[in-house]
Amino acid sequence: MSGTGRLEALSDGVFAIAATLLVLDVHATGAGDLTHRLLQAWPSYLAYAISFLTIGIMWINHHAVFQQIGRVDRRFLALNVVFLMVIAFLPFPTRVLAGHLRHDATTATVFYGLANVAMACTYSTLWFYAARGRRLLDPDADERTVRGISRAFLPGIPIYALATASAFLSSWLALGLYGGLALFYLLESSLLARG
Amino acid sequence: MSGTGRLEALSDGVFAIAATLLVLDVHATGAGDLTHRLLQAWPSYLAYAISFLTIGIMWINHHAVFQQIGRVDRRFLALNVVFLMVIAFLPFPTRVLAGHLRHDATTATVFYGLANVAMACTYSTLWFYAARGRRLLDPDADERTVRGISRAFLPGIPIYALATASAFLSSWLALGLYGGLALFYLLESSLLARG
Amino acid sequence: MSGTGRLEALSDGVFAIAATLLVLDVHATGAGDLTHRLLQAWPSYLAYAISFLTIGIMWINHHAVFQQIGRVDRRFLALNVVFLMVIAFLPFPTRVLAGHLRHDATTATVFYGLANVAMACTYSTLWFYAARGRRLLDPDADERTVRGISRAFLPGIPIYALATASAFLSSWLALGLYGGLALFYLLESSLLARG
Amino acid sequence: MSGTGRLEALSDGVFAIAATLLVLDVHATGAGDLTHRLLQAWPSYLAYAISFLTIGIMWINHHAVFQQIGRVDRRFLALNVVFLMVIAFLPFPTRVLAGHLRHDATTATVFYGLANVAMACTYSTLWFYAARGRRLLDPDADERTVRGISRAFLPGIPIYALATASAFLSSWLALGLYGGLALFYLLESSLLARG
Repeated sequence: MSGTGRLEALSDGVFAIAATLLVLDVHATGAGDLTHRLLQAWPSYLAYAISFLTIGIMWINHHAVFQQIGRVDRRFLALNVVFLMVIAFLPFPTRVLAGHLRHDATTATVFYGLANVAMACTYSTLWFYAARGRRLLDPDADERTVRGISRAFLPGIPIYALATASAFLSSWLALGLYGGLALFYLLESSLLARG
Repeated sequence: MSGTGRLEALSDGVFAIAATLLVLDVHATGAGDLTHRLLQAWPSYLAYAISFLTIGIMWINHHAVFQQIGRVDRRFLALNVVFLMVIAFLPFPTRVLAGHLRHDATTATVFYGLANVAMACTYSTLWFYAARGRRLLDPDADERTVRGISRAFLPGIPIYALATASAFLSSWLALGLYGGLALFYLLESSLLARG
Repeated sequence: MSGTGRLEALSDGVFAIAATLLVLDVHATGAGDLTHRLLQAWPSYLAYAISFLTIGIMWINHHAVFQQIGRVDRRFLALNVVFLMVIAFLPFPTRVLAGHLRHDATTATVFYGLANVAMACTYSTLWFYAARGRRLLDPDADERTVRGISRAFLPGIPIYALATASAFLSSWLALGLYGGLALFYLLESSLLARG
Repeated sequence: MSGTGRLEALSDGVFAIAATLLVLDVHATGAGDLTHRLLQAWPSYLAYAISFLTIGIMWINHHAVFQQIGRVDRRFLALNVVFLMVIAFLPFPTRVLAGHLRHDATTATVFYGLANVAMACTYSTLWFYAARGRRLLDPDADERTVRGISRAFLPGIPIYALATASAFLSSWLALGLYGGLALFYLLESSLLARG
C-alpha cells in the first residue's frame, strides 16, 4: 500500500461505520398506531440526515485533504486518531438530539453543536499540522489548492461556535445553521476532490 | 489509490455495515420455549434475508456501475453520499417490517417500499448524472454496456412505486414483489459485472 | 482494483463487522456483585470465542480460496452475497447460544449447529461453482492446491450435520465438536494461505 | 493485493469497528434534566476516550509492525485472528468500566486491566512469532527498527500486569496508568511509522 493507503483505509472505516451506526438510534416509539408513530419519529429522521450528511462531507473533505499529503509521521497518525475519536462520537450527540428535540431542545442542540466545534478543532489541527511549512505535503501539491483548503478550514471553528451559541436564542435557528454549514462545505469548491 | 478507489472503499464499507447490522434486529422474543420462539421469529428472518439480498444486489450493481466511471467530481461524491444515506437507513424499515408483519402489515410494507423507492431514485440520479453526455464515464466505457445499465435503471422507480402501492391490496403481494424485483436485478445480465 | 479486489473488500468488511458485532451480545447481567456477575457471564465469553474463531477461520480460508480465483462472474457474485448473508447471521445464533447454555441448551446448540451447516453449504457451493472445470480459477492456480481445497471442503457438510445432531445426545459434546472443527480447519494445511 | 494486503484490510476493519462501536455504550441515563445527565455521564466519556485511544495506538503500531513483515504463513494468520479477537472484545470491559466507576470501581478497573494484559500477550506473541530468526520479516527490514519494536514490546506484559494490580490500591491510580501507558506507546519513537 502507498504511504497514506492504510491510514485512509482506517479513516474510511471509521467514517463509514459512524455514519451507518446512526440508524441504530432511529426509533418509532410511543403510543398510537404504526403510521402515527412513524410520522412522530421525524426528529430521529432529521437528526439521522444531518449527521449522516455531516460525516459524509467530512469524508469528502478528508479525501481532498489526503490528496495533498505526501507522507505521514507518527504525530500526524496520532492527530488523525484523535480526529476520528471525535467523528466516531457523533452518534451519541445525534441520539441526544433525536430524543430531545421536543423537550430540552436547547441543551440537546448546544451539545450537538459542541461536538461539531470539537470536529472543526481536531480537523483544523490535523490539516495545519500537515500544511505548515508544507511539512507533510506532497511535493507536487498545488500551492493554490493548499491555500484554498486552509482558507476553507480557518473560519470553521468560530462559525460552528457561533452556530452553537445561537441555540440559546432558538434551537431551530441552530439546527438550520448546522444544516446550512453542511451545505456550504458540500459546495465549497476550493475543497473540490478532483479524484 | 486510483480515481474512484477511496469512493468505492467508503461505499463498500457502508454496504457491508448496513447489511451486517441487520442481524442486530433479529430477535426471538415472546413466550413459550426456545424452539417455539425461534420458529415464531420467522418475520425477522424473512426481513433479514430480503434486506440483505437487496443491499447485496445494490452492491453488485454499484460494482458494475463504477467500472464505467472514469473520474469523479464533487457533485458526484455528494450524490453518492446521499445514496449511501438511503442505503444505510434500510435497517430501520427492515426492523419495522420484522416487527409488524403480524399486525400493521400494510403500513410496514408501504414504509419498506418507500425506502426502496428512495433507493431507486437516488441510485438513478447518481447513474444518470455520471452517464449524461458521458460526463464522468471512462473514455473506454463500452456504449452498449452503458445503455444497458441505463435501460435497467429507467424502470426502477415506477416499478418500485407500483410494488409499494400494491401493499394496500395485500402486504404479501408487496413482499413477493420486493423479493421478485431483487431476483430480477440479480439476474439482469446487462448489469453484468465482468470483474 | 484488480478483478477480485472489490469483492474481497466487501467480504472482508462483512467478516470483520460480523465478528466485531459479537461483543455487543456479551453481557454481565443477573444479581450479585460485579465480580460474581462477570464470572457468571462465561457462556457469553465462550460463545463469543467460538464464533469469533469460526468467522476468523472462514476468513483465512476465504483468503486462500480467492487466491485461486482469476475472474468472477455475476453468478459467483450472487453466491458470495448469499454466503455472506449466512456469515453475517451468525451473531444471532451466537446470542441464542450465550443466553441459553444453562437452560434450553439443546435447542440453542442445535440452532447454532444449523447455522454452521448453512455456512458449510453456501461456502462449498461458492467454491465448487468456481472450481468445477476450473471455471473461474486463475490459469496459474496450482492443481494440487485446488484439489486440496476441494478435499477440505467436501466433508464439511456431513461433519457439521453430525456435530449438530450430537447436540441431542449432549450439548457439551456438540460444543466440543464445534470448537474441535474450528481447530481442524485452522490447522488444515492444504488450505494454507501462502500470502 | 500484496502479500499482507488483505490481512491488513481485515485488521483495519476490526480496529475501526471495535473503536466505533464504543460509542454505542455512551449513555446519559439517570434522573434530572438533560444538562445534569450529560454531565453525570463523564465515566462514559472517559472510558470511551481511553479505549478509543488504546485501539488507535494499537492500530498505529500494527501499521508499523506490518511494514516489517514480508510474508505471512497460516500460523501467523491464526495468531492475528486471536489478537483481533481480544481487540474486538475491548468494548465489553469498556462498558463495564463506564458503568461501574462510581460503584465496584476496583473490579471494573481490574477487569479492564486484564483485557489490556491479554492484548499485550497476544500482540507480543504475534510480533515475536514473526520476528524470531526474522521468520516472516521483509528481507529489507532494518535490523535496528526490528530491535526497537522488540524492545518496545518486551516490557508490555509486566507493565500492564502491574498497572492492573495497582487497581487494588486505587482504581484512579490504575486508570491513570492505563492512560499514561497509552501516551507512552503513542510517543515511543522506535515504533515510528514512517508511512
